[in-house]
Amino acid sequence: MTASGPATTTDLRTPALVVDRAAFEDNCAAMDTIRPGRSLRPHVKAFKSTALARELDRAGHRGFCAATPAEIEGMVRAGVGDDLLLANESLDVARLGSLETDAVVTVAVDSDPILDAAIAGGVRSILIDIDVGLPRCGCDAETGERLAARARAAGLEVRGVMGYEGHLMMVPDRERRRAKVEAAMAVLAEAHARIGGDVVSAGGTGTFDLNEWCTEVQAGSYTLLDTHYDGSDLPFRPALGVLATVISVNPRGWIVADAGLKALGMDHGDPTWVGPGSVMFCSDEHVTLRPDRLADHHVGDRVLLRPGHVDPTIARHRTMWVVDDDPTEGAAIVDEWPIDLRHW
Amino acid sequence: MTASGPATTTDLRTPALVVDRAAFEDNCAAMDTIRPGRSLRPHVKAFKSTALARELDRAGHRGFCAATPAEIEGMVRAGVGDDLLLANESLDVARLGSLETDAVVTVAVDSDPILDAAIAGGVRSILIDIDVGLPRCGCDAETGERLAARARAAGLEVRGVMGYEGHLMMVPDRERRRAKVEAAMAVLAEAHARIGGDVVSAGGTGTFDLNEWCTEVQAGSYTLLDTHYDGSDLPFRPALGVLATVISVNPRGWIVADAGLKALGMDHGDPTWVGPGSVMFCSDEHVTLRPDRLADHHVGDRVLLRPGHVDPTIARHRTMWVVDDDPTEGAAIVDEWPIDLRHW
Repeated sequence: MTASGPATTTDLRTPALVVDRAAFEDNCAAMDTIRPGRSLRPHVKAFKSTALARELDRAGHRGFCAATPAEIEGMVRAGVGDDLLLANESLDVARLGSLETDAVVTVAVDSDPILDAAIAGGVRSILIDIDVGLPRCGCDAETGERLAARARAAGLEVRGVMGYEGHLMMVPDRERRRAKVEAAMAVLAEAHARIGGDVVSAGGTGTFDLNEWCTEVQAGSYTLLDTHYDGSDLPFRPALGVLATVISVNPRGWIVADAGLKALGMDHGDPTWVGPGSVMFCSDEHVTLRPDRLADHHVGDRVLLRPGHVDPTIARHRTMWVVDDDPTEGAAIVDEWPIDLRHW
Repeated sequence: MTASGPATTTDLRTPALVVDRAAFEDNCAAMDTIRPGRSLRPHVKAFKSTALARELDRAGHRGFCAATPAEIEGMVRAGVGDDLLLANESLDVARLGSLETDAVVTVAVDSDPILDAAIAGGVRSILIDIDVGLPRCGCDAETGERLAARARAAGLEVRGVMGYEGHLMMVPDRERRRAKVEAAMAVLAEAHARIGGDVVSAGGTGTFDLNEWCTEVQAGSYTLLDTHYDGSDLPFRPALGVLATVISVNPRGWIVADAGLKALGMDHGDPTWVGPGSVMFCSDEHVTLRPDRLADHHVGDRVLLRPGHVDPTIARHRTMWVVDDDPTEGAAIVDEWPIDLRHW
């Protein structure tokens, strides 16, 4: 694709991160049908690439959210998005208040020290982060109302509320999931009534179409999808793989490829092998696979693994290589997405 | 420490990787008592830093092993070590055969295609990798003998054999572990008798002192140690931590700090909090902790986490900051080790 870069997946050193262009585009189209334009605020933490974010920006999603100040800085540097939300608490926000950009930069606030840091750091716009049931960040409505008043008194714009129902993404039954989301969003709505502002930001890939109570959904995983969502009712499919090379074939019944713990996010368990057989285990730089027919496999073959969790897998790599065919068979590389939002 | 770098851990952005200098030095001293000089071949895959490797080189361990060609290249670039072993199979070894260095560069071989790549790539020295029971790389003695003959006929030096008893590192009872290692090493000794050469390379942190049958032990984790080895009989202690900042304190009983899946290797499960309480769960950029006494914790406090698995944790960061006191209390930074052997 690029003048100097690899032309096909055969030229890639392994392990390498590859993206199926058609699956990515289908996932984006399925999301856009339900959540067009600003009704979706893509979460860059999932893919950590301004090149991928730029594709979403071009499709009309000009607001983004992020989990780290470094991700916001990277988006500003790349000039992608016009409305950037740090959907997380940080004391290290002076680096955001001092950014020179036309984009609106907003940070989440759930306590006095976090608000103090925003004010001191020159941040001009906040959202109040409400605890809607996930044991993580967020305050109650009363605290939120008090913080909003303090922020407004200090001259900051309070754009509204956010509340992430992350504990509900994987509730298996759709109707049960919907009912639980409704209850969580009632908490957020009560806070919103006290706090005001135009924005009610919530949701994720697992609730993108059934969270009717927010003004915008925060989702990122839908673009590339985890195998963790396998068996869900979502209209997305896995688009990300780790390409590896077979380096050993053992007559006792296994083969070994050169992608291991350092190329994969392992918090959701072993990856899935897109091939005839199963994953035995991963080591630092190896995956041991048990194929159905050992005789079909040879040193030098390429294999494709689907990571259990996309986000921490991507954070281990420098580049995503976009392909439009089977990467184990030397597919042409049609695009290269640097993973430029890594680290902190 | 450095002219421009952070002076104390208070100056560090979090999450940050910190190394306890005293624990690291004690671990090295405990290893050196049993395995001085070339009887230890430190494995750089564990720590991925030529700065750390240089400390071991200065202590007399001038031979190193590595899991990736990129690690060997980095060691050559840094001029650390005089005997560098790729203790793994790779087809991508022309990049090693072409290195300009006075160090001996040796690669492991367990099949004809891997040997062909070594010959074609200009590698001059190999070890035969023997399967001693771990379901990963390595061949049987007969194949090894044949490969050694082929290599010698092609003008390569066959330095001996290696066989990694990785499946035995965690056998809990020391005597049982020793007996199992003895059986695995009998397989390696038989292969060595057929193949020849001076080197019998084996072992790891879990068997460093009871593998009496090898000429050199391959170990790296001992330098910084995993909590995974907690409760073992090893004379090492954890030296590596992930420093994080408390960003939220919830009256419902938990606190949240800013180190998550992207700052940790999670294949051995959650990290351990070095504090009064327990880890509830990790998200992408968060860890939720349940402290014994909530009132003792405030936004802005620093907390220290011990990763379950050192190797993949380190591979997620750019730098290790070496300290000689409690990093949660603003310890002075006494050294900075870039993690320069990452990626592939």
